[in-house]
Amino acid sequence: MSTLAEPGPAQTRQSDVKVKAYGAFAADQPLEPLDIDRRAAGPRDVEIEIAFCGVCHSDLHTVRSEWEGTLYPCVPGHEIVGHVTAVGSAAGKFKVGDTVGVGCLVDSCRTCSACEEGLEQYCTGGFTGTYNGSTQDPPGHTLGGYSQRITVDEDFVLRISHPPEQLAAVAPLLCAGITTYSPLRHWNAGSGKKVGIVGIGGLGHMGVKLAHAMGAHTVAFTTSESKREDALRLGADEVIVSRDAEEMAAHAETFDFIIDTIAASHDLDTFTQLLKRDGTLCLVGAPEHPHPSPGVGGLIFRRRSIAGSLIGGLAETQEMLDFCAENEIVSDVEIIPAQAIEEAYERMVRSDVKYRFVIDIASLGGADQAS
Amino acid sequence: MSTLAEPGPAQTRQSDVKVKAYGAFAADQPLEPLDIDRRAAGPRDVEIEIAFCGVCHSDLHTVRSEWEGTLYPCVPGHEIVGHVTAVGSAAGKFKVGDTVGVGCLVDSCRTCSACEEGLEQYCTGGFTGTYNGSTQDPPGHTLGGYSQRITVDEDFVLRISHPPEQLAAVAPLLCAGITTYSPLRHWNAGSGKKVGIVGIGGLGHMGVKLAHAMGAHTVAFTTSESKREDALRLGADEVIVSRDAEEMAAHAETFDFIIDTIAASHDLDTFTQLLKRDGTLCLVGAPEHPHPSPGVGGLIFRRRSIAGSLIGGLAETQEMLDFCAENEIVSDVEIIPAQAIEEAYERMVRSDVKYRFVIDIASLGGADQAS
Repeated sequence: MSTLAEPGPAQTRQSDVKVKAYGAFAADQPLEPLDIDRRAAGPRDVEIEIAFCGVCHSDLHTVRSEWEGTLYPCVPGHEIVGHVTAVGSAAGKFKVGDTVGVGCLVDSCRTCSACEEGLEQYCTGGFTGTYNGSTQDPPGHTLGGYSQRITVDEDFVLRISHPPEQLAAVAPLLCAGITTYSPLRHWNAGSGKKVGIVGIGGLGHMGVKLAHAMGAHTVAFTTSESKREDALRLGADEVIVSRDAEEMAAHAETFDFIIDTIAASHDLDTFTQLLKRDGTLCLVGAPEHPHPSPGVGGLIFRRRSIAGSLIGGLAETQEMLDFCAENEIVSDVEIIPAQAIEEAYERMVRSDVKYRFVIDIASLGGADQAS
Repeated sequence: MSTLAEPGPAQTRQSDVKVKAYGAFAADQPLEPLDIDRRAAGPRDVEIEIAFCGVCHSDLHTVRSEWEGTLYPCVPGHEIVGHVTAVGSAAGKFKVGDTVGVGCLVDSCRTCSACEEGLEQYCTGGFTGTYNGSTQDPPGHTLGGYSQRITVDEDFVLRISHPPEQLAAVAPLLCAGITTYSPLRHWNAGSGKKVGIVGIGGLGHMGVKLAHAMGAHTVAFTTSESKREDALRLGADEVIVSRDAEEMAAHAETFDFIIDTIAASHDLDTFTQLLKRDGTLCLVGAPEHPHPSPGVGGLIFRRRSIAGSLIGGLAETQEMLDFCAENEIVSDVEIIPAQAIEEAYERMVRSDVKYRFVIDIASLGGADQAS
């Protein structure tokens, strides 16, 4: 927060730049083109021309105010990749032309124990979200990556070392990737471990790729038989159709760790029962309606845990991007123009995407066309 | 199991010994005096004359078949202390006259990974409970400590080194003690940690004493203001009346670990919210009706866990007994004759006991009076 204030009061700092974006003016209105202001780079800022922005379920929940508290106009998008166009006088980490990314957060308090440990996502003061967060920039809340440009403190910018032609497919790593990478690392997924990924969607397909690359025996859980082949292609060693009670029972008490990416209310016990003693079921999606209350006996009799995990900190997100570059991991994406966003949301709700939509920001038109 | 079989078929082994006990013949009948058979010591067995037996909630649930599956006649009791009266020819750990204890289990498979790691309570084959477990002894299921004698494989017998006059107060360590000791150790309670104990009853009052002795900053949670002074006396550094929302809010995000001993359905979120990032709420009681479904956001936004824990293995139970002897820790008990057991159950259900009933087994009468 202090860094954002450094340029001084809004009226005296360098002029804001008007850029094209795509967003909504109210919860019940569709997304549409709009012009927004981006601050000129302050001393520690990086100005980024956005090339692609991934489409996350959170975008839809926020823009439609399904989680309440959405500020309008709302410009979603926190899976941002692009190139540096300017750097502040005191910013030394990036240079013009660098390929960079911005994920779910653009600032945090920087002083709490979480921030000091590089776990900014757990900032006790509350991190500043890439959209719908608090800022001194106009219009008083942050605006996300469905836009041509963004200006971000260099400490919240990530370096991307994938080949240029993969840039669109890198975008989802900034949220879907780190959301599964962080718990896999925290709970020591890797060689010798049997790891489950529940739900083969935007998050889950990344979880399968990452767990496999970490060397874990990776098992994909899906409700649909039709995803079996695809899950194997993504890197799963085994695929379990979770509606098949017999198939599930054959794996009872064999998993070290399971990530559950399903954000809809569902029975957790079917998965905790698959954990070994001391195993953990980690939830990364918050359902709109509560899950059925998990059975306590299943926890007590095998000292199992149900935990949660939230995205990742900056250092770990960089580690994840480097890991993915080294292991040639990207997201499976379908590139769309911004104008197709409402249709993409509808398809995303139906899980009709393999496995992440990414907006080609060129579809917003030239920056010089901003009115 | 194999050890129990060693003496050979029932018809050829040494005569069983008839002893007095207290138990029930059906779920809807009160406990009453009865005579039961105890096997003579096999080669690896220890015969124990029982001095005291603690009264656990599980006794009541089982004898009334509230968990279903109770076999009758049912003789409860798994907080057993007494003295060795005979040892088998191949048993070398104990000698006649030793003061010993028996807890919740009297056998396990001994071959699964849990047993090999000394975590017999998590035996994947299912451990043999001290009562209502499977056995070749008459009447085909195990009979517990509300009785004058018990014969147990020496591997499932614990050594007691407390002063003799404390023997009655040692009994509850065998279940209430180890049930709280094991998770405190597993989750590294100790100096520098802030640890909560929810519910100041049989389990909770031991949790407070143990966490305090381990050096943790120990906080007792109780719903009743009347227990505040007592909780401080037990060793709590602070006491929180959990119905006081303001008092609870003042401790938000400050706990490393909380043990929840409440077996009745209640809101878990009020306690998870008190955990720091990466903190764990450990449940040691299974409610008859499910808890309200815990909020997932509270787990995700601080990477918290809800876990369960079950009693302890033999090695850890011995460690606990030794720790308690060194630190002069016993249970707070009210000694009763067996004939008062039904009244004691009623009072236990009302939490009207500070903090554990213990049956003086001498009340059953001389062994020579068995009819």
